[in-house]
Amino acid sequence: MSGIGLSVKKSENFSEWYTQVILRAELADYAPVKGCIVFREYSYAIWEKIQEYFNRRIAETGHKNVYFPMLIPERLLRKEAEHFKGFVPECAWVTVGGDTVLKERLAIRPTSETIIYTMYKKWIRGWRDLPIKLNQWCNVVRWETKATKPFLRTREFLWQEGHTAHATKEEADREVMEILMIYKDLIENLLAIPVLVGRKSESEKFAGAYYTMTLEAVMPDGKALQMGTSHNLGQNFSKAFDIKYIGKDEKEHYVWTTSWGISTRLIGAVVMVHGDDKGLVLPPRVAPIQAVIIPIFYKEVERTLILEKAREALKRLKEGGVSVLLDDRTEYTPGWKFNEWELRGVPVRVEIGPRDIKQKQFTLARRDTFERVVVAEDELVEAVKRLLEDIQQNLFSRAKKFLEDHITTVTTYEEFKRVLREKGGFIRAGWCTDPECEMRIKDETGATIRLIPLEEEEPPSNCVYCGREAKVVAYFARAY
Amino acid sequence: MSGIGLSVKKSENFSEWYTQVILRAELADYAPVKGCIVFREYSYAIWEKIQEYFNRRIAETGHKNVYFPMLIPERLLRKEAEHFKGFVPECAWVTVGGDTVLKERLAIRPTSETIIYTMYKKWIRGWRDLPIKLNQWCNVVRWETKATKPFLRTREFLWQEGHTAHATKEEADREVMEILMIYKDLIENLLAIPVLVGRKSESEKFAGAYYTMTLEAVMPDGKALQMGTSHNLGQNFSKAFDIKYIGKDEKEHYVWTTSWGISTRLIGAVVMVHGDDKGLVLPPRVAPIQAVIIPIFYKEVERTLILEKAREALKRLKEGGVSVLLDDRTEYTPGWKFNEWELRGVPVRVEIGPRDIKQKQFTLARRDTFERVVVAEDELVEAVKRLLEDIQQNLFSRAKKFLEDHITTVTTYEEFKRVLREKGGFIRAGWCTDPECEMRIKDETGATIRLIPLEEEEPPSNCVYCGREAKVVAYFARAY
Repeated sequence: MSGIGLSVKKSENFSEWYTQVILRAELADYAPVKGCIVFREYSYAIWEKIQEYFNRRIAETGHKNVYFPMLIPERLLRKEAEHFKGFVPECAWVTVGGDTVLKERLAIRPTSETIIYTMYKKWIRGWRDLPIKLNQWCNVVRWETKATKPFLRTREFLWQEGHTAHATKEEADREVMEILMIYKDLIENLLAIPVLVGRKSESEKFAGAYYTMTLEAVMPDGKALQMGTSHNLGQNFSKAFDIKYIGKDEKEHYVWTTSWGISTRLIGAVVMVHGDDKGLVLPPRVAPIQAVIIPIFYKEVERTLILEKAREALKRLKEGGVSVLLDDRTEYTPGWKFNEWELRGVPVRVEIGPRDIKQKQFTLARRDTFERVVVAEDELVEAVKRLLEDIQQNLFSRAKKFLEDHITTVTTYEEFKRVLREKGGFIRAGWCTDPECEMRIKDETGATIRLIPLEEEEPPSNCVYCGREAKVVAYFARAY
Repeated sequence: MSGIGLSVKKSENFSEWYTQVILRAELADYAPVKGCIVFREYSYAIWEKIQEYFNRRIAETGHKNVYFPMLIPERLLRKEAEHFKGFVPECAWVTVGGDTVLKERLAIRPTSETIIYTMYKKWIRGWRDLPIKLNQWCNVVRWETKATKPFLRTREFLWQEGHTAHATKEEADREVMEILMIYKDLIENLLAIPVLVGRKSESEKFAGAYYTMTLEAVMPDGKALQMGTSHNLGQNFSKAFDIKYIGKDEKEHYVWTTSWGISTRLIGAVVMVHGDDKGLVLPPRVAPIQAVIIPIFYKEVERTLILEKAREALKRLKEGGVSVLLDDRTEYTPGWKFNEWELRGVPVRVEIGPRDIKQKQFTLARRDTFERVVVAEDELVEAVKRLLEDIQQNLFSRAKKFLEDHITTVTTYEEFKRVLREKGGFIRAGWCTDPECEMRIKDETGATIRLIPLEEEEPPSNCVYCGREAKVVAYFARAY
C-alpha cells in the first residue's frame, strides 16, 4: 500500500473526491480562519502561469497594472445604491485600528469600483485623459454565508480586477468584448476548458452594471461554473461618482466605465474538469511540473548507469524548455512515485529502467490516457514536447465533447425539468425575457439563466415557461 | 510656463520636494483612506521589476511562492508574547462579517509568522520535510500613529515576506545570510543604492527574533533608511507554535525558523537617493521607460521626414531590448516634453531635429548629468544601451560616494552630537554593548544603532557614551 492516492472515485462522490484531490495533491490546505485556504506552492505556481499569460495579453492591448488600497470607507461603498445593496451583506468590516475605535468603519474590498472611481474623478478632466485602462492583482474578501469550498468559494480569494474609463459607449463595449475574448483564449488555450460566452440576464448581472458578459463552463457533475465576467457599467458609476470629462465638443460628459475579473476559482475548474480517479490531471501549459523522470533499478549495479542517464535526460529536457523534475529519492519505490506524480497530475512520466538502457530508449507515459510509448534516446526532447502538445489538445477535445454533450435543447418545461434532473448541464430553451418566468424557473428547479449567447440563435420554441413568444435563447443550469 | 516641474528645490525643502516628485511624476496619489496611497502604474511597474528580479533569485535558491490568508485570529497572534507585544499596537481589526459581530476579532496581517507557523506545525513531521522555504508577495496593514509618508510609511503597503523552517541553527544562519546577500545585490545592482550590512542591536531587532540582519542606506537629508531585514527567529516561534520534527537521530527537535522582507519602501528610497531639482531620476534597470524619443520640427515640411525617422528609431530600440516610448503628441512643444520626461526620470532622451536628419545622426541626452552626445544613425541602439549602462553605474557611484562621505568615525560623545547636528549620516563609534548606553543616546539625540557591521571592525575608542571598553563598533543615525 503506497499511502498515496484517493479513497473515493470521481464518479461516485464528486464533492469528496474534489476535496481529497486538493488536499492530497497539496494544492491547498484549510487555514485556521473559517472559509479561508492556504494557496500552497503547487496551486500558486498555476496562478502565476495564469498571471503571466494575462499580463502579456493586457499589456499588448494597452492596459497597465496598479495597486489601489484595500480598505474602503463605508460612505464610498454607499455611493452607487445597487452596488452597495449587492455587496454590503458580504463585507468584512474593520472597526478598530491599534487601540482606537474608528469613526467610520472600513470595508475590506469585495471589489474595487468605488475606491478606484474616487481616484478617476480626480484624474479625469478632458478627453485627452481617456481612456484609462488599469488592472490590479490582489486579494478580496467576501464574507460568504454559504458553505465554502476550496478555490470555488472562499472568504478570501485572489483575482485580477480591471477598471477602465472611456469617452463613449462604443469604446466601452469594445473594451468589454476585447477582454472577454482574452479570457476565452486564456481559459480554452491555457486551461483547456471550453466555455460558452454570452450576456447575463438583468437579474444575474453584476450589482451596478449596465450589462454583464460571462464565460461559463460545465463541470463533470453537470453544474455550471462561471469562469469570468466582463461588465459594461454604463454611466451608472460615473454619475454616482461624478466622473465627467470635457469632450472635443467642449461640453461635459459622463465617462463610460467597465470592469472585469477572473479569480483563483479557475484553479478549482481545472481540478474538476480534467481530474480522474487517480487524482489531478494538469494541462501541460499550466502544469508547474510538465514531466517527471523516474529511474527504475533493482540491482545496485544498474544504479549508476541509470542515474547517469536520468541526469542527462533532465539536462536535455531543461535545455529544451520543459519544466522537468528528476525524482531520485531513494526512500520510495518507483511504484510509489508513479502514484504520487499521477496524483499530482504531472502530464508526462519519463521512465528509465535496465531495458531502456540496453535498448537506448526512454519509456514515456502520458497522464491523460495512461498510454505508454517508447522513444529512441536522441528523440527524447522532441517526443516529450510533442506529447505535451498532444495532451493539451486531448484534454481540450475531451472537455469540449463533454460540454457539447451537455447542452440539451428543450421545447417544453416538462422536458426542461427531466433533463435537469437526469442529465444536468446546460439547458437551451426559448425565453420570453420576462424576469417573472426566469424567477419562477429558478424557484421551482434551482436552475438560473447562465447566459444569453453572444451570437443570436433561433429559439427552438416559444418561452419554455409561459408559452408566449420567445425573444431569445437562454442557457439554463444549476451552478456553483 | 510649462505647467510641469517642481516648485521647490531638493536642497531647500527635502520633504516637500519628495512629496511633489511623487505626485507630479505620477508615482502615487493619496487615497481617500488616511495613511494609504494608490500605487499608480509608474511606481507599480518599478515594483514589478523588483519582483521579477527577486523571484528569479529566490527560485534559483529553491524557494517557492505561496499565499496565506490575510486574516489572523487574535489567539494566534498572542502565541508568541514578544511578537504580540510588538505588533498589537498597530493592528487593524476586523470585528464584523456581513451583519454578524465576530466571536473572535481578526487582525489584518501586519506580518504572517503566526498564520504560517500554524500551518508549518501541520506540515512538518520528520527531517525529510525540511527545509521549507516559502515566500509570498502581499499587502500588509500596520495602523501607524506617526505621520505617514508615501512609500516610506503608509498604513497599507506591499511587500514580500519569506518564511523558512530548518533542522539546525547553522542552516537557518545560512538562509538568513543567503537572503541578505540577494537583497544587497537587488538594492545595489538594480536600484543603484549602496547599503551597509550588519546586525541589529537587541533593542532594535524584530519582535520575536533571535537576531536580525539589516541593510541600511543613507538618504540625502542625512537620515538612515532601513531597506530590508532578514531574521533568524531561532526556536522562539517553533516553541510557541510547537513545531517539532523527528530527526535522523529519531528524537524530537524544535525547528529553526527565519523570516525576511523588503517592501514598496524601496521605491521611496529610489526617489530620494537619485532625484534632483528637475524631479525623478530612475536607474535604467528599474525604469519603466528607459528612453523617450522626441521629434523636433518647426516647419510642416520637416514633419514627415522626422516622424518617419523617429518611428524607425523606436522600432530599432524596441528590437534591441530597450523599453522605449515615442512622444509624438502634437499638442505639446518639445520643450514641454523635455520637462515632463525629466520630471518622470526617464534615463535617456533621444532627440530628432532637422539637423539630425541632415547629418544622419541622433542627439542623446542623459538624465543624470544632462550631458548631450551626438551619435551616428546606425550606432543608435548600441549607443543608447551603453549610455543606460553608464547611467546605472554613475548613479551607483554617486550614491556610493555620498554614503562614504556620510560615515563619520567619532571618539567622543561631544563629537557624536556635533556630527549628528551638523552633518548627519552614519556615526561610527565604539560601544560597550550595554543597552543602557544605547537607550540614553537615543533619548538624548534621537539617533539609534542602525547596525553592528557584518565584518568585525576595530573600535576607534572606548564606548562613546560611558567610556568603558568598547566591545563592538556600532553605526548610529537618525532614521526614517
